[in-house]
Amino acid sequence: MRLATIRTAEGTSAVRLEGDRHLHLGFPDVGALLADPGWPDLAQTPDVTSSPASGADFAPVVPRPAKIICVGHNYTGHIREMGRELPEYPTLFTKFADSLLGAHDDIAKPSETEALDWEVELAVVIGRSVRRADEAEAVAAIAGFTVMNDISVRDWQFRTIEWTQGKIWDSSTPLGPYLVTPDELDGGVRPDLMVRTLVGGEAMQEDRTGTLLFNPVDLVRYVSTIVRLNPGDIIATGTPAGVGHAREPRRYLNDGDVVATHIEGIGGCRNLIVGARP
Amino acid sequence: MRLATIRTAEGTSAVRLEGDRHLHLGFPDVGALLADPGWPDLAQTPDVTSSPASGADFAPVVPRPAKIICVGHNYTGHIREMGRELPEYPTLFTKFADSLLGAHDDIAKPSETEALDWEVELAVVIGRSVRRADEAEAVAAIAGFTVMNDISVRDWQFRTIEWTQGKIWDSSTPLGPYLVTPDELDGGVRPDLMVRTLVGGEAMQEDRTGTLLFNPVDLVRYVSTIVRLNPGDIIATGTPAGVGHAREPRRYLNDGDVVATHIEGIGGCRNLIVGARP
Repeated sequence: MRLATIRTAEGTSAVRLEGDRHLHLGFPDVGALLADPGWPDLAQTPDVTSSPASGADFAPVVPRPAKIICVGHNYTGHIREMGRELPEYPTLFTKFADSLLGAHDDIAKPSETEALDWEVELAVVIGRSVRRADEAEAVAAIAGFTVMNDISVRDWQFRTIEWTQGKIWDSSTPLGPYLVTPDELDGGVRPDLMVRTLVGGEAMQEDRTGTLLFNPVDLVRYVSTIVRLNPGDIIATGTPAGVGHAREPRRYLNDGDVVATHIEGIGGCRNLIVGARP
Repeated sequence: MRLATIRTAEGTSAVRLEGDRHLHLGFPDVGALLADPGWPDLAQTPDVTSSPASGADFAPVVPRPAKIICVGHNYTGHIREMGRELPEYPTLFTKFADSLLGAHDDIAKPSETEALDWEVELAVVIGRSVRRADEAEAVAAIAGFTVMNDISVRDWQFRTIEWTQGKIWDSSTPLGPYLVTPDELDGGVRPDLMVRTLVGGEAMQEDRTGTLLFNPVDLVRYVSTIVRLNPGDIIATGTPAGVGHAREPRRYLNDGDVVATHIEGIGGCRNLIVGARP
């Protein structure tokens, strides 16, 4: 099952992809759908409206998550390129709902940075409320997966020891286009999928989600020890090697660049960088 | 003007303190009040209901802020006790709305920690939407101040280089009881007030907000460069020296402890630690 939130003349609408059509589900967005415990069935019984999938205008797949928790240092190769040891615990930071963009929205480069960077990430979408989840509860809490580009403002990220100020810029972070349920993916809730970033068509990141140190089930268990995870919450599982900041020479995103993040079996985001370069 | 959100039989209610009475303002909470651009006038025209201030049950003064941004390393003494240099930029991290507690609520010590610690903080409450605020806009965006106890789970905070996982535990962080407008405070939007933490009546932290490296106006300017700040958003301005983790010997909060955080002219939180000690 592939779910999305699309923008319409009236606002937004939760849809399910069926062939080349979007079947409208009678909910304003995927977050509202997931908040109904009957969502797996409700998503199978669309109302009478449908629209062509082609040319759809995607909102963030969950437009207003209450919690967006991101993981750093989770692909072996990326940990090594940043010069770090394999960690015992996941490194966590957060974003705001206002940080999000739709999967094909333009990304406005803030005038305050010259170090805008990409990070493709497998994102877990929570479908059931859990706290201190055991293994089975964590599996059951995973509604599915989507793609996040954890756009990072490196010069601000490394101003201090806490990364937050490089991670929370308004309207910076594409999320979507589709939530794909685990039954459609190789490996299910512990998927083993190729992840890729292309900038201007050139491959920058390429790895497999099977190499994650902490897999999605591990992460739901770990994070839910600290906070209750609720439907629509997002856990972004970290990024593989190949970010611009770690390249020789360093490479950042600028006006006119197109950054494409893709995960096998899920899809991807494709975003034009616009704006403030002098 | 002193505003609070109190719990009632029907839910919550925004109130203004007048003498020993709470005048109810016809809004469900202070966040909803601040979201109305006419709030300064609306807060002067209460509806007919009032209740005694004594014995009120305080909710977090803003129960569901969209953004809670916390500042580390902002009092000279605390920076030095943690062994750090004076920073060029504020260090930022975040909390969730679910992290909050009322000013007098019990704090349940999670069974997963033996290192629960206190941090008294002057918290800025935003009253007007701003992005990339100049000096005058930043001043105008400050609705007032309240008290946060930035309860920290030190063993989790220092598991990785990012503090987040020690800062976001559900229902950990008292905020309130009152929002006090700048006209009532020495120094106005750059107040110079004594801040204190007492544990079991013993003074642990004591400093003046006048010694902040980055004052509230500076912080609204800095943070609003990164994100739009909206009414009800919170900036916690950092904590002075004297946290339990930096004492010799270290001292943490346990079942039965009472932690009181107080800021001159504003008031304070007083919370009993309960729960999970074996």
